[in-house]
Amino acid sequence: MKITFAERKNIQLIEEGHMLSPKFDENGLIPAITSDYFSGEILMHGYMNKEALEKTLLLGECVYFSRSRQKLWHKGEHSGFVQKVKEIRVDDDQDALWLRVDTAGKASCHVGYRSCFYRNIMLPSKSTNTSDAVVQLAFKETKKHFNPDKVYKGLANPTRI
Amino acid sequence: MKITFAERKNIQLIEEGHMLSPKFDENGLIPAITSDYFSGEILMHGYMNKEALEKTLLLGECVYFSRSRQKLWHKGEHSGFVQKVKEIRVDDDQDALWLRVDTAGKASCHVGYRSCFYRNIMLPSKSTNTSDAVVQLAFKETKKHFNPDKVYKGLANPTRI
Repeated sequence: MKITFAERKNIQLIEEGHMLSPKFDENGLIPAITSDYFSGEILMHGYMNKEALEKTLLLGECVYFSRSRQKLWHKGEHSGFVQKVKEIRVDDDQDALWLRVDTAGKASCHVGYRSCFYRNIMLPSKSTNTSDAVVQLAFKETKKHFNPDKVYKGLANPTRI
Repeated sequence: MKITFAERKNIQLIEEGHMLSPKFDENGLIPAITSDYFSGEILMHGYMNKEALEKTLLLGECVYFSRSRQKLWHKGEHSGFVQKVKEIRVDDDQDALWLRVDTAGKASCHVGYRSCFYRNIMLPSKSTNTSDAVVQLAFKETKKHFNPDKVYKGLANPTRI
């Protein structure tokens, strides 16, 4: 099967139409938000290029484009923690995707947590601390679900400074 | 109060530390996912620059950077549909934000829907249709919550082809 997207011709069709016409940015990427289909928790924020989106649609499993490795990344190819696509939504101007996935209870974060969003920003607007200290983070997840040193043995950390 | 971020010095501190050190991209932006605190639904995918994030943290209401208008955008400034920040999370490498907000039951999408993600991609991997027709969308929301022509009267549509 060949995946075909509609041309982006007019705003009315993009916003209110029934055809997928994704907007890839100047690097050929579209942001992809991934949430757990069952809990609703956001697991990660990644990117897809055209090929990654096509593969995701055909395979029914998340395939991203890794910016740090500059190549296609079938999530779970090293860890086994595959994300099965239950639903994909697209936003009004079709420049962002929301993937709702089944992780089979597995973690999604390369650091070892269930979600990449394992820390909470302590809001200064809700704090009585009026100093200008660095904004602090609080951990929402405290227990890792796997040992990344074992699971990703020999692979470079994708995080870049 | 002055908002201060930590320098991005090493990966260990970025991933496992307690200080906020957001990564802004080559355009000075960080992606921001916004979800409804109560329903969990993702409402929109936007961007913040440093100033927008600082204002959001101080104000407790979402302030984005509008790429189409190239300026700060206090969500609700025209529509009145303000997003009150209940929680903000940051991801492992601190290059994405997740804002959980209280919309007071108001819509968040400039087209008139509650969520910008009002359409679902019909997955070809789950379809028996083997043709190479354009990938189709199905509407998950069918009723608009407000009339954008009235609410945004005289303002340009932010969607770009």
